[in-house]
Amino acid sequence: MHNDFMLKIAAAGASGYAGGEALRLLLNHPGYGTDFIIGSLTGGSNAGRRFGELVGHLPLLADRRLEETTADILSQNDAAILGLPHGVSAALELPDTMKVVDCGADYRLRNANDWVRYYGTDHAGTRPYGIPEMPGHREEITRANYVAAPGCFPTGATLAAMPGIVSGLMSPQVSVVSITGTSGAGKKAAVNLLGSETQGNLRAYGVGTHRHTPEIKQNLEELLTDSDDVHVTFTPVLAPLTRGILTTVTAPARGRAEDIRRAYEDFCANEPFLHLLPEGQQPETKNVQGSNMTHLQVEVNDGMIVATSAIDNLTKGTAGAAVQCLNLMLGWDETAGLPQTGI
Amino acid sequence: MHNDFMLKIAAAGASGYAGGEALRLLLNHPGYGTDFIIGSLTGGSNAGRRFGELVGHLPLLADRRLEETTADILSQNDAAILGLPHGVSAALELPDTMKVVDCGADYRLRNANDWVRYYGTDHAGTRPYGIPEMPGHREEITRANYVAAPGCFPTGATLAAMPGIVSGLMSPQVSVVSITGTSGAGKKAAVNLLGSETQGNLRAYGVGTHRHTPEIKQNLEELLTDSDDVHVTFTPVLAPLTRGILTTVTAPARGRAEDIRRAYEDFCANEPFLHLLPEGQQPETKNVQGSNMTHLQVEVNDGMIVATSAIDNLTKGTAGAAVQCLNLMLGWDETAGLPQTGI
Amino acid sequence: MHNDFMLKIAAAGASGYAGGEALRLLLNHPGYGTDFIIGSLTGGSNAGRRFGELVGHLPLLADRRLEETTADILSQNDAAILGLPHGVSAALELPDTMKVVDCGADYRLRNANDWVRYYGTDHAGTRPYGIPEMPGHREEITRANYVAAPGCFPTGATLAAMPGIVSGLMSPQVSVVSITGTSGAGKKAAVNLLGSETQGNLRAYGVGTHRHTPEIKQNLEELLTDSDDVHVTFTPVLAPLTRGILTTVTAPARGRAEDIRRAYEDFCANEPFLHLLPEGQQPETKNVQGSNMTHLQVEVNDGMIVATSAIDNLTKGTAGAAVQCLNLMLGWDETAGLPQTGI
Amino acid sequence: MHNDFMLKIAAAGASGYAGGEALRLLLNHPGYGTDFIIGSLTGGSNAGRRFGELVGHLPLLADRRLEETTADILSQNDAAILGLPHGVSAALELPDTMKVVDCGADYRLRNANDWVRYYGTDHAGTRPYGIPEMPGHREEITRANYVAAPGCFPTGATLAAMPGIVSGLMSPQVSVVSITGTSGAGKKAAVNLLGSETQGNLRAYGVGTHRHTPEIKQNLEELLTDSDDVHVTFTPVLAPLTRGILTTVTAPARGRAEDIRRAYEDFCANEPFLHLLPEGQQPETKNVQGSNMTHLQVEVNDGMIVATSAIDNLTKGTAGAAVQCLNLMLGWDETAGLPQTGI
Repeated sequence: MHNDFMLKIAAAGASGYAGGEALRLLLNHPGYGTDFIIGSLTGGSNAGRRFGELVGHLPLLADRRLEETTADILSQNDAAILGLPHGVSAALELPDTMKVVDCGADYRLRNANDWVRYYGTDHAGTRPYGIPEMPGHREEITRANYVAAPGCFPTGATLAAMPGIVSGLMSPQVSVVSITGTSGAGKKAAVNLLGSETQGNLRAYGVGTHRHTPEIKQNLEELLTDSDDVHVTFTPVLAPLTRGILTTVTAPARGRAEDIRRAYEDFCANEPFLHLLPEGQQPETKNVQGSNMTHLQVEVNDGMIVATSAIDNLTKGTAGAAVQCLNLMLGWDETAGLPQTGI
Repeated sequence: MHNDFMLKIAAAGASGYAGGEALRLLLNHPGYGTDFIIGSLTGGSNAGRRFGELVGHLPLLADRRLEETTADILSQNDAAILGLPHGVSAALELPDTMKVVDCGADYRLRNANDWVRYYGTDHAGTRPYGIPEMPGHREEITRANYVAAPGCFPTGATLAAMPGIVSGLMSPQVSVVSITGTSGAGKKAAVNLLGSETQGNLRAYGVGTHRHTPEIKQNLEELLTDSDDVHVTFTPVLAPLTRGILTTVTAPARGRAEDIRRAYEDFCANEPFLHLLPEGQQPETKNVQGSNMTHLQVEVNDGMIVATSAIDNLTKGTAGAAVQCLNLMLGWDETAGLPQTGI
Repeated sequence: MHNDFMLKIAAAGASGYAGGEALRLLLNHPGYGTDFIIGSLTGGSNAGRRFGELVGHLPLLADRRLEETTADILSQNDAAILGLPHGVSAALELPDTMKVVDCGADYRLRNANDWVRYYGTDHAGTRPYGIPEMPGHREEITRANYVAAPGCFPTGATLAAMPGIVSGLMSPQVSVVSITGTSGAGKKAAVNLLGSETQGNLRAYGVGTHRHTPEIKQNLEELLTDSDDVHVTFTPVLAPLTRGILTTVTAPARGRAEDIRRAYEDFCANEPFLHLLPEGQQPETKNVQGSNMTHLQVEVNDGMIVATSAIDNLTKGTAGAAVQCLNLMLGWDETAGLPQTGI
Repeated sequence: MHNDFMLKIAAAGASGYAGGEALRLLLNHPGYGTDFIIGSLTGGSNAGRRFGELVGHLPLLADRRLEETTADILSQNDAAILGLPHGVSAALELPDTMKVVDCGADYRLRNANDWVRYYGTDHAGTRPYGIPEMPGHREEITRANYVAAPGCFPTGATLAAMPGIVSGLMSPQVSVVSITGTSGAGKKAAVNLLGSETQGNLRAYGVGTHRHTPEIKQNLEELLTDSDDVHVTFTPVLAPLTRGILTTVTAPARGRAEDIRRAYEDFCANEPFLHLLPEGQQPETKNVQGSNMTHLQVEVNDGMIVATSAIDNLTKGTAGAAVQCLNLMLGWDETAGLPQTGI
């Protein structure tokens, strides 16, 4: 089935939630079996185990064994999606000829002080940042060999605020409250992520200290068209569902409601993964579950904008963004293998 | 078991979520069977039906029949908790000698224009407002015959903002995002409240138009100690759980973090149902489930306050507040029958 | 985009859960846009409404309008998937030249008395029954113009029991307990299906009276290779999730554990949508969510077989089965457009 | 507040789910503060930590520190409820003068071979078994100093089958399928109990091997009034909720439906915590959430009995049963502090 013309795409951290979602998308990609095959599946402490013991929803790969996450093993592939703990990808020395999308944070922040303050380790540098919808990014990603996929909260917040900020119609003094499912915290055993703790429960966490705060701020600063100061207050809330982020961005309006709505309409018009809902209909995370879509709405009341977005944190928020970037990097259709329908 | 010295307490709208929760609290109240008995249980379209068919968690009342919600029937009781659709309680002419707590909105808003704008009917007037923790309210409720119990979102938002607003340390330009369980929407058949629609889903709704917006604003204006303008942006989000509201209030700080924390500590110190969590621990709705507590936290970052609160919308947010008020109105211990422990 | 060589496939009852799932599968089908287009979308009381108001997860169809469910409208299409209330499809006179898969029950039962007893209306007759995995059915479906898609519970129970019954190693005295998500009850407003009633709750229902009981029994009788009496006790339980059925079938063993396991292995070996898990690993509904797979396990203890299956009730249990049948009826690859991966 | 006449009741394993539930019940017990106080709170690896960090729903105890679980510390109390891992309680040498209820399994099984087979350690012996509703047990518990509280699944299964078995109208060839919330698995970090794994998921587990199997069988054998062989097939299923077990017991009927129903009615008539629902109404776990009730139903169809029960696994299934036993052992009202209402 495999021939020498097909690419090998590896998944590092394959048994984690990001890895499993990337593999789901790749197995259903129209290029699977013709343009590429699934290459190495690697893991950390799980190396050597049968994949099907660890990941139940991909029976086609159930009999594979996890290999170790090393540069040697990964470099036997043509491309890789990395779903690794923070700090691990920066330490991997991968050949420049590989196409790599890194779902970790290591190369996202430009400001080394922010990195040190929020992550506590040395700053590894910066790579092209994987939100193709941000002005200029689609082109930069297309030319890149190594892309830093965005964080899930920054994706939801940036896409909700972007049309307002870019148009100058939203003041960059934003309050972001993001309600998220539990899969964003990863697949690691922890008492406060047990079903008994999350089901039937709502909990704020990381108020004012969450690592995605500087990433949101960096994105809004990049989008800003004047020299105003960006101010971001970010409050994540954990809710009892597995997949999905509902983001609310509240900020002072700098224009009329109809102009603000038009800015959102114009921005979304040609973007395959941005869907501005008709007036009166609010985003719902179940409508984007398993899809790469961002559903958006914007309201203006009493001088304030409330922009809302719904994404699947594992798809558009992580692995879908990774495949979207990889499609661009490999010269494939940007939308290939990325559902525009939720389940 | 019943004698002439015992009061009869009725529940109107007994088969709704507020009615069922009020009855649960009354059945477990230390005065039940000694100071009072459960009087009339009334319903609307369900009048005549066996109570146990409609409400499964109160087997002690299962064989009762629902009566009609009329002034005649209710006035055969010494006290009543009303859990009725908006507009119904204002039309009931109950004797002044009864002690009544109204869980509906009819008598909450002082501004008739706000009432007309948000509810669309004639303004019925105003009654003492049932948040005993608001300055002066405990005394007013104690003297009252008829109290307007607060809305669930206004309870969560007011209690989270109150220590900041009263102390003058929080600017009254607040953005409120409240994530809520589904029981706040009541027990009426509606497709968008089906389990298939709410489970695994997050959805914003009523952005900028929710009826609780003017009630939150009215409370903050009352609490304000100077003549500043109050501005409230309110965004509710529906999450996949039955009971609980997690409220985040974001507003500019007008003082140092330590002074703000002290204001919260001082305010909560003697309030039996306010529990300020130690620094670093965030409120969780499961910790207040079925209890009358409000768990609070306050953080200050980059000049912004994020105050969070967790309540059970059916207990402290509705029926628990009603029992708390009734305790005061009847001269009983304010905390009687109101759990301070979640389940 | 559409040309005369492409088929038009309609969805009747398009705004229901079965209809929405069928459309999701068709939109992601490799033949979409080359072999077929989406034809008429019809509804009952919702006819005339914008599709996107009713169904949020299919933005590609959001601007369509629902038409009425009539034979005239449906017969303008080459094929149709019907997701209609019981009794409606039997009354539709569709041309024999159309390829129709009926997700309703009207043509499933062969025994008219059973139909009358469980459904209370006149028996409409029988059509080829849409479980291709049952011996002989794949061929029959391939030749059919009109197929009766199976019920969701009968699918889970039949596939769990089939290898045991067909091999003669499972006694046909079976106790079936099926735990299901809420979407099986459809998208109709009902108090006992509200999120507030289903979240955090488990409830048995229809014990001994559920309409799927005779359908399960009919299937097992058909599979039986001797003249033994089939006895089925069926107990469904509603659980707090939207999609998924976990079925347990308990029955006396008529052979050795290793022979029983081999019978399951042999049966599943060449079936693309049956996945027998390795020993020690139990089926989980999340692993088949949104997929057309059935995950199976079989255990033998103390002379009793416990066979378990997990399906997505909307996919393999309804709309996926419908697409699987339609693929066969139209001469396409049976697996086209049907994910073998869960999300 | 404490005087020398008040008993001190300790909770060992206080930060676990059973311990937390026992403390919730004790804090709301009418004897709290008059007849007893909360004595030592002990933990394993958490000894020394502030209780409020570990358990959020009991603010009245938040500032306590966990002590170590030793016989020395526990023996400074007059009574204790033990919520410890299997094997730990058997190793604690507590004075005979203490009243102890042990929520662990160590002393439940009479058959040493069963113990060794299912638990793998030495058999510690047997203590009076804490289901007061079983014939003779109420009296035995009342006289006991040390009681073995029952397992959660055996409680649900035994109470559902008991009226049938005791009356001789249910054949002791039973198939038990129990659907449970996640809290039964305890508060230990494990990937397969993460919210991301349990939410939206149904999973069978421990089919044929679960440790509660011999306990169910032992109970049914004890209840049996003839010398028939008891046969139990037990299949537990994990569902996405925190608290609650819905048990279905299927077995051949040995009598007429009306006699079977009467046997259930008679059995439940005088039991404060057994509530047989009217015909046609099925048990729901939310109706017993946080209560000590067992809701029951029994159906007879085609010669088979399906008996169903709903309990809260942490209340009637563990800590409520423990308090019920302690009430009897201390000469208090058996129902004191045990809600008959769900929340």
